[in-house]
Amino acid sequence: MLPPHRQLHLGLFLLSTGHHIAGWRAADAWAGMPMDFGIYAQVAKLAEASCFDMVFLADNNCVPQTDWPAVRRTTREHILEPIALLSALAVVTQRIGLVATGSTTYSEPYHVARSFGTLDHLSRGRAGWNIVTTSNANEAWNFGRDAHLAHADRYRRAASFVDVAKGLWDSFDDDAFLKDKASGIYFDAGKLNILDHQDEHFSVRGPLNLSRPPQGYPVLVQAGGSDAGRDLAARQAEVIFSVSQTLPEAQAFYADIKARVAGQGRDAAAVKVMPGFFPVVAPSRAEAEDQMAVLQKLLHPDVGLSLLSFLTGGFDFTPYDVDGPLPELPDTDVGKARLRVIADLARRENLSIRQLYERIAVSRGHSMVVGSAEEVADHMQEWFEGGGADGFNVMPPTFPAGFEAFTNLVVPLLQRRGLFRTAYSGSTLRDHLGLPRPPREARGHVALSD
Amino acid sequence: MLPPHRQLHLGLFLLSTGHHIAGWRAADAWAGMPMDFGIYAQVAKLAEASCFDMVFLADNNCVPQTDWPAVRRTTREHILEPIALLSALAVVTQRIGLVATGSTTYSEPYHVARSFGTLDHLSRGRAGWNIVTTSNANEAWNFGRDAHLAHADRYRRAASFVDVAKGLWDSFDDDAFLKDKASGIYFDAGKLNILDHQDEHFSVRGPLNLSRPPQGYPVLVQAGGSDAGRDLAARQAEVIFSVSQTLPEAQAFYADIKARVAGQGRDAAAVKVMPGFFPVVAPSRAEAEDQMAVLQKLLHPDVGLSLLSFLTGGFDFTPYDVDGPLPELPDTDVGKARLRVIADLARRENLSIRQLYERIAVSRGHSMVVGSAEEVADHMQEWFEGGGADGFNVMPPTFPAGFEAFTNLVVPLLQRRGLFRTAYSGSTLRDHLGLPRPPREARGHVALSD
Repeated sequence: MLPPHRQLHLGLFLLSTGHHIAGWRAADAWAGMPMDFGIYAQVAKLAEASCFDMVFLADNNCVPQTDWPAVRRTTREHILEPIALLSALAVVTQRIGLVATGSTTYSEPYHVARSFGTLDHLSRGRAGWNIVTTSNANEAWNFGRDAHLAHADRYRRAASFVDVAKGLWDSFDDDAFLKDKASGIYFDAGKLNILDHQDEHFSVRGPLNLSRPPQGYPVLVQAGGSDAGRDLAARQAEVIFSVSQTLPEAQAFYADIKARVAGQGRDAAAVKVMPGFFPVVAPSRAEAEDQMAVLQKLLHPDVGLSLLSFLTGGFDFTPYDVDGPLPELPDTDVGKARLRVIADLARRENLSIRQLYERIAVSRGHSMVVGSAEEVADHMQEWFEGGGADGFNVMPPTFPAGFEAFTNLVVPLLQRRGLFRTAYSGSTLRDHLGLPRPPREARGHVALSD
Repeated sequence: MLPPHRQLHLGLFLLSTGHHIAGWRAADAWAGMPMDFGIYAQVAKLAEASCFDMVFLADNNCVPQTDWPAVRRTTREHILEPIALLSALAVVTQRIGLVATGSTTYSEPYHVARSFGTLDHLSRGRAGWNIVTTSNANEAWNFGRDAHLAHADRYRRAASFVDVAKGLWDSFDDDAFLKDKASGIYFDAGKLNILDHQDEHFSVRGPLNLSRPPQGYPVLVQAGGSDAGRDLAARQAEVIFSVSQTLPEAQAFYADIKARVAGQGRDAAAVKVMPGFFPVVAPSRAEAEDQMAVLQKLLHPDVGLSLLSFLTGGFDFTPYDVDGPLPELPDTDVGKARLRVIADLARRENLSIRQLYERIAVSRGHSMVVGSAEEVADHMQEWFEGGGADGFNVMPPTFPAGFEAFTNLVVPLLQRRGLFRTAYSGSTLRDHLGLPRPPREARGHVALSD
């Protein structure tokens, strides 16, 4: 039976020990989660039992914050490499999508196309690639560079990188492999395409040593909210992870992105906007607020101030009164969109530095609801029906309890309201998202005659 | 109960549809194996049921041969990315070691250290890294270079690369992670080590965003047989995959490597030499020979000649009479050791070009036995007890039949002779190989005080 109307898409943003930065200290939290595959498997299975579209992994090729007195109090300095982790999760799940972040700045398109293409084969069509350009100088220092590339250069390189990756995935036509034991012909050499890409960023001959992925291309995800990021998203992305604090902000972003997508001649409905969303949910609002208060008490001031500095491009808050107002923040070359969201939040709610970091440490600029299941579901429905979102990247405060509360209390409510599936109807991530399987793109390949 | 004496180590060299290049055409062969995880899982479980030390995956970041009229007749132009594949296999196995090839020439130490470290965590201590320098120009063209690096440069880069990887794995001391919910201290910053490596090849600050791997370092494997390759192996390797046609060749290699290892002040017994070995085994020698004849009939001349050209550094055999003798081959910059083995084989057995490619297409220069289980086991025992090998990297002609014949017929015989384990006594790859877990190396780290 077809769904009667447009439905929500849900991702589980699977971050370390939970999205509350002090969440690992909660009595029932799995503090050993970062290196423990068994726990990731348990969480992914729970997301699949709740019919989530996908699990989503962030990534860094560095320890992003190096303010050690604060960082030693957090769990995010060590994470499993996402392609390896998702390849293992592909074995213990059957339907849920598997999306990993991959940087275009400190990697090579041949490696990235291989890894995500392999994940798509291993999972039989459930891979997604969250394309990021990386905004952390600590990452540059691990790859022989003194400083990270400038914002505009990163995005130009990213656009070329994605083109190359697509060209590599198209190396063999879908029907190239005959596997004909009688004639001894394994593949039709006339269906092999040599990319031979050359531009200022990359020189890549191909072919990729991989059959075309089951989904054609893994689902392309993008998260940059800057002007350059939105342009890249409008041209290439199929899912957009956004950061918005309020519905008006979300509506403005949503309308802008859909217009840019249409401006590229693409179907705006085939691009899904999924803001991050931090829910603290309990049977009653009072209980949810109690849980939140417990978590906030576990937050050490060093951690809050360090995170705030990190998210504002390294701004040094130490000369300022922590209980005074937020000073004017200079423009930065990193995380431009998030910086604006954070500054707007402080101004709008007239928050002190301390109040701001207490808010940021929780959801890092994403929207948040602390309340009953009805209140959480109402918020999601309002954004979904009000032109702010096609779905949400759900950021549980803790694992397992914070996520279990969402799947036990909120998901059934969304399902009863007809907003979310009660069973998967397809088998690939493209199926879940209602995205078409892309045919091989026509480009200047050297086609070989057989 | 301790084994009464030194025992064999066995690896399964898991190559595509089998090591006979036309093996995919056999009636019972799995022609779809290259992209089918389910088949890899079945084969790995069979190897584990037979108590193999490890499965082993080769790798290329390219389609290595581009003589398309020949290559279209083979299955090796597409392979799953090894780290992703082994991460998935880690979930469906419990004890067997998981060794992947990783190039030091077209990758970055931070990426490689992360991937293999993650595999070691996912598998709870079963990862191994086969360190190769890559000898194929087709790979260079996928990474923006006109030609591959010269042999000596590749090995200098490799030595530095391995040093950096070890330094990155040592970023956190084994006991750095306190996970102390009460104090809120997750790790002891005094047990964090900043590598800050700088040399002509790499500038890598660290730390790696990963706990120290369960094995300390993944097991380090090396396969180069050239002088530079042997030097690298003597300094760094714990397992050496070698290529030898005859016992005297194997003995000479074994003695040379063990002497070089001792010359580095290392324990020669703690480095395991495992030549490749291609067994075609059946209940009787006549049946084995019949099977081999069937496989050889499936070998197309285009494929044989193309492979011979590839393995001799691109030498063009077309001007020569295919039924005449092998011409003098010029020295090459790639695969030096294998070239010598091939040329010696042709000279020793007075083979024509055709006879040579028929031999090479089978085992690519590695030793081979076509015979009964007793004959295969006798060969292995002779090499093992005669100072030619500590074990073998087994190269079945086909999957599944060629490998099942080995596990059903040969493994029980080796076990009855007391040469091979009947159950795993440990849980990590280091346990299986009798290798110590390396402590963190003292080097010029910047240690932070807490």
